[in-house]
Amino acid sequence: MVVAIIGVGLIGGSLALKLKELRIAQHLIGVEQSESNQKIALERQLVDEFLPLEEAIEKADLIILAIPVNSTIAMLQKVITLISKQVVMDVGSTKKEILEAIKGHPNRKRFVATHPMWGTEFSGPTAATADSFANKAAVICSAEESDKDAVEMVEQIYTQLGMHLMYMDAAAHDVHTAYISHISHITSFALANTVLEKEKEENTIFELASGGFESTVRLAKSNPEMWVPIFKQNRENVLDVLNEHISQLRKIKSCLEKENYEYLKELIVHANDIKRILK
Amino acid sequence: MVVAIIGVGLIGGSLALKLKELRIAQHLIGVEQSESNQKIALERQLVDEFLPLEEAIEKADLIILAIPVNSTIAMLQKVITLISKQVVMDVGSTKKEILEAIKGHPNRKRFVATHPMWGTEFSGPTAATADSFANKAAVICSAEESDKDAVEMVEQIYTQLGMHLMYMDAAAHDVHTAYISHISHITSFALANTVLEKEKEENTIFELASGGFESTVRLAKSNPEMWVPIFKQNRENVLDVLNEHISQLRKIKSCLEKENYEYLKELIVHANDIKRILK
Repeated sequence: MVVAIIGVGLIGGSLALKLKELRIAQHLIGVEQSESNQKIALERQLVDEFLPLEEAIEKADLIILAIPVNSTIAMLQKVITLISKQVVMDVGSTKKEILEAIKGHPNRKRFVATHPMWGTEFSGPTAATADSFANKAAVICSAEESDKDAVEMVEQIYTQLGMHLMYMDAAAHDVHTAYISHISHITSFALANTVLEKEKEENTIFELASGGFESTVRLAKSNPEMWVPIFKQNRENVLDVLNEHISQLRKIKSCLEKENYEYLKELIVHANDIKRILK
Repeated sequence: MVVAIIGVGLIGGSLALKLKELRIAQHLIGVEQSESNQKIALERQLVDEFLPLEEAIEKADLIILAIPVNSTIAMLQKVITLISKQVVMDVGSTKKEILEAIKGHPNRKRFVATHPMWGTEFSGPTAATADSFANKAAVICSAEESDKDAVEMVEQIYTQLGMHLMYMDAAAHDVHTAYISHISHITSFALANTVLEKEKEENTIFELASGGFESTVRLAKSNPEMWVPIFKQNRENVLDVLNEHISQLRKIKSCLEKENYEYLKELIVHANDIKRILK
């Protein structure tokens, strides 16, 4: 099939590499505003050609939106207005606002709302990698609102990528991702700023930094163009989780202030329970 | 040389494996309270034998303390009282209280205070691994307070392990590790508790969890027996950093509450600066 990918960055570019590698796509069309991204993507042979949006849609069987979630809304409204029978999917980190924006659209059923739970802290076509997606979850949201053949096409693709499928509605997705992904980015940004603010001996950080520091701060390298719109669209859930997280930190702080090491131990033992979930 | 390792857990056991692999130690003696740890360590051939403390010290050229930092103080006072010319080193995550506890001791100069900046979230002899230490920093604290031959022995060992040496006093060490290691553990414990408290659908977390979540929460598996004493001994520095961290999180929270996305973007751009330090 012919696949058009709108936005050839980390996710779009990595999908392109996999779709070609697995021979799911015979022809890959990129749609991309940034000329420098186009250049890199062609050099890396992520796609076969770049076309203007309308031409790409006309030629494609499947159109994948892989742009920041704020741009997705307007682009999706445009794309599903331009299609005839093509399938359209997104890969964004929020779902509720996006689905609300196309509610009642005559072509709504050709769209499948998805979120492959894979990414890295890097962005752009340079960061695209074929070492992606496998063994992670691919969420399909509100599948019953999409045509059956469209959902099946998307399911087949994610299954071929080695992902396991999960189904939920947009509201549930946005709550879960606030816990599983968005708060991790916020703590990481805040941790980086904590260290950068106070620890002026940067060479010392660099030399001392152990694996633990690297893993908790890694996500702080993530791109604001992608993350500010996610936090904005998922604002209420993220605020709920952030409030809870600050209150958990304040419990630990209070233990240290009052030298209540028994309760501190209890809090850590409770946190250790995460072993049941993450092996 | 003959090396006695007091505490054959993650760090002691991993050191034992490396000292044998690199033929730095011809004979390895373990000193270990826990019978089950002794059994595992012998099965895994981490050490050649277990002996009572006094016999181990008598036979050894080098004695390594690899027990939680609260136990280190009393054990170190005992060990340096029992030695004649042997070298003693520790590998603990705090330094100030430990060095104060042996200030003025007649054998003080035979002790070298060190902190190899390597570890994992797992503990005990089962977690010991020869895939350890290389390319990380090994801090030597207040080297001028130790005999030259003792420092040189320690330097040679860490260099053979593939570590790069750093020198600082105990106070500086404890400030830096609060930033580089201790706060990462606190945020990770708090993040685990946030998710466990609020997100009751544990199967969903398990299935959804992406690499980002795993890397920020990984340290929450860490052992309270090790970490409570570290936080206790480094209480003031950890509280300073924790206060700053909570204030950084509150800045992000305030941006979301007031929908000030411009400032949120600035905060993220600032956090991205961590790229200069962590490649």
